[in-house]
Amino acid sequence: MRTVQVDLQDRSYPIYIGTGLLDQPELLRRHIPGNSALVVTNETVAPIYGTRLAAALDGLRTETVAIPDGEQFKNLETANLVYDALLANRMDRQTTIIALGGGVVGDLAGFVAATYQRGVHFIQVPTTLLALVDSSVGGKTAVNHPRGKNMIGAFHQPRCVLADVRTLESLPDREYRAGIAEVIKYGLIMDYGFLQWLERNMSALLAREPDAMVHAVEQSCMNKARVVAADERETGQRALLNLGHTFGHAIETATGYSEWLHGEAVAAGMCMAAHMSRELGWISDSALRRARALIAEAGLPVEPPAMTAEQFMALMSVDKKVEHGRIRLVLLQGLGNATVTADFPVEALETTLTAFTHQAA
Amino acid sequence: MRTVQVDLQDRSYPIYIGTGLLDQPELLRRHIPGNSALVVTNETVAPIYGTRLAAALDGLRTETVAIPDGEQFKNLETANLVYDALLANRMDRQTTIIALGGGVVGDLAGFVAATYQRGVHFIQVPTTLLALVDSSVGGKTAVNHPRGKNMIGAFHQPRCVLADVRTLESLPDREYRAGIAEVIKYGLIMDYGFLQWLERNMSALLAREPDAMVHAVEQSCMNKARVVAADERETGQRALLNLGHTFGHAIETATGYSEWLHGEAVAAGMCMAAHMSRELGWISDSALRRARALIAEAGLPVEPPAMTAEQFMALMSVDKKVEHGRIRLVLLQGLGNATVTADFPVEALETTLTAFTHQAA
Repeated sequence: MRTVQVDLQDRSYPIYIGTGLLDQPELLRRHIPGNSALVVTNETVAPIYGTRLAAALDGLRTETVAIPDGEQFKNLETANLVYDALLANRMDRQTTIIALGGGVVGDLAGFVAATYQRGVHFIQVPTTLLALVDSSVGGKTAVNHPRGKNMIGAFHQPRCVLADVRTLESLPDREYRAGIAEVIKYGLIMDYGFLQWLERNMSALLAREPDAMVHAVEQSCMNKARVVAADERETGQRALLNLGHTFGHAIETATGYSEWLHGEAVAAGMCMAAHMSRELGWISDSALRRARALIAEAGLPVEPPAMTAEQFMALMSVDKKVEHGRIRLVLLQGLGNATVTADFPVEALETTLTAFTHQAA
Repeated sequence: MRTVQVDLQDRSYPIYIGTGLLDQPELLRRHIPGNSALVVTNETVAPIYGTRLAAALDGLRTETVAIPDGEQFKNLETANLVYDALLANRMDRQTTIIALGGGVVGDLAGFVAATYQRGVHFIQVPTTLLALVDSSVGGKTAVNHPRGKNMIGAFHQPRCVLADVRTLESLPDREYRAGIAEVIKYGLIMDYGFLQWLERNMSALLAREPDAMVHAVEQSCMNKARVVAADERETGQRALLNLGHTFGHAIETATGYSEWLHGEAVAAGMCMAAHMSRELGWISDSALRRARALIAEAGLPVEPPAMTAEQFMALMSVDKKVEHGRIRLVLLQGLGNATVTADFPVEALETTLTAFTHQAA
């Protein structure tokens, strides 16, 4: 087992990474201060891991809420079902909410933990690669509003994260690969050594070899933890984690958040950001080729769906990251070295959009 | 104008207390970092102060949401109306939410400010005495759930509080007196000098003389700020602020939160707590008489409505302040000196309940 410590003063917490951790109850138990717990999971995950988690919680007063599976249920109405369960079972301020599932379950359960009685204890047991390497680090919680994703939320750090890579065995291949997009991201933005490791070990990672998964999750969490420790509330450096995301959100919005998985959109978005970095002369042709090749090897898209440059510009201009009307982007200054900037000639963006898009009819 | 500084490291903020402060735009403006604001108010307050606040915000992009007046609207559905308004008007992370109204408006607007895009700036302009002396200090925000009051919330400190006592001129007499219950509370729990001042100046305060109101609000805020600075998240000393509240909540619940105002229930509850403190031999007969006389002079109830001791015990046992099955109470060890304890013989509580209640039929 590896442990990554997320360093946030009195909100610091460990991420335990390994195989079969769900069968080690003491890992969880030492982080549950009270005598009750509410497990929030979804209808897909509950039948697979619910029983093992329940066994690990034996002796505690435990209740379970299984929410419907899907991003469309990440809203206040579903959060209200969890509040109902907490109150119906008289869970007090000392209770611990445990999220067992992917990003939707983690974000929603975390939001409820942040707001129930002004905050109760929270533990994450992520079961998707995306949740293991992304949403389990950093304390962002949220639900969606009909007018925008993640518009209602809070920062609320868990007491621990139990990252059992064995839970990834049941993950559909497409979702697994979408998670790898975020793994590659950490290499591209801040860790050249890890990027090289990914270039050498992508096939082992795709084959879900346990050692490869543990290493990839550990390096991803370490890198994210480093960024979050420096900028917990996203006032600056944390925006680095958005490499490919502004392009990616435009793709997700244009396709109605249904055809493209988040990681797939980010993958194409990272290729666009790398292309633009090359246009600016910040990275070489060879660096661009390597980034693109790694993303392709992971079976991820290297270009967006059929969209126009105008569509991209319109959608990117309403992104949350826009400040004072200027689009801020995460761009590469080298492999393993990214920067957040609004300081670029708009022509570079236009060239990239033209290269990746189709003419309007 | 007086200024009370609430000392919470990087979340510190000033409370400006005086008459006619709503007509001093610069007080507000220096605490609004962006160029937009959303005013949350209610249908009663909006017609009286809405225009003056709008004038103070001249030049900013300002929108107003008037929610229905009443505790029954302090819920997630109403919060959703405010989220709607924020998103429909494309308010971004730099926006400031301004609560103009009493406790319901402040608690709900504060909760939205705590959770919109994971937290935006917040300013309070309280217009009831209770809100001026209680909910404007400490950063507690919340909405109610059908199964319990204030069950969904967050800690979120405002950037400033504008306490214009002139807004109290329009307050119905009964609500004004209910606010005085909390003012007396500060004297009883931690400030003997202020308690003496209240004994000498209650008639001026009841007559709403501006100087008396400013002094009472200032001393109340100073005392509360002192407690909150020592214990922002209510893990210990902050519970002192609940003098009379465990008894009071039982009264409010028994009467369906409709007949008794919160401050009235707290007033009767403080008399019960003082009585019990005398039973324990912690305060003298004369101290009990003085506490009771001051509460009576404010026109507040000194005993609960017709309830049985069994009712009290049942309702007090489900209070949020119960830990490990023991009822914790705030009791007096002297005038201006309170303690939080579960360490008392249950007979003392029973004696007090018997003295204040009626036999079951």
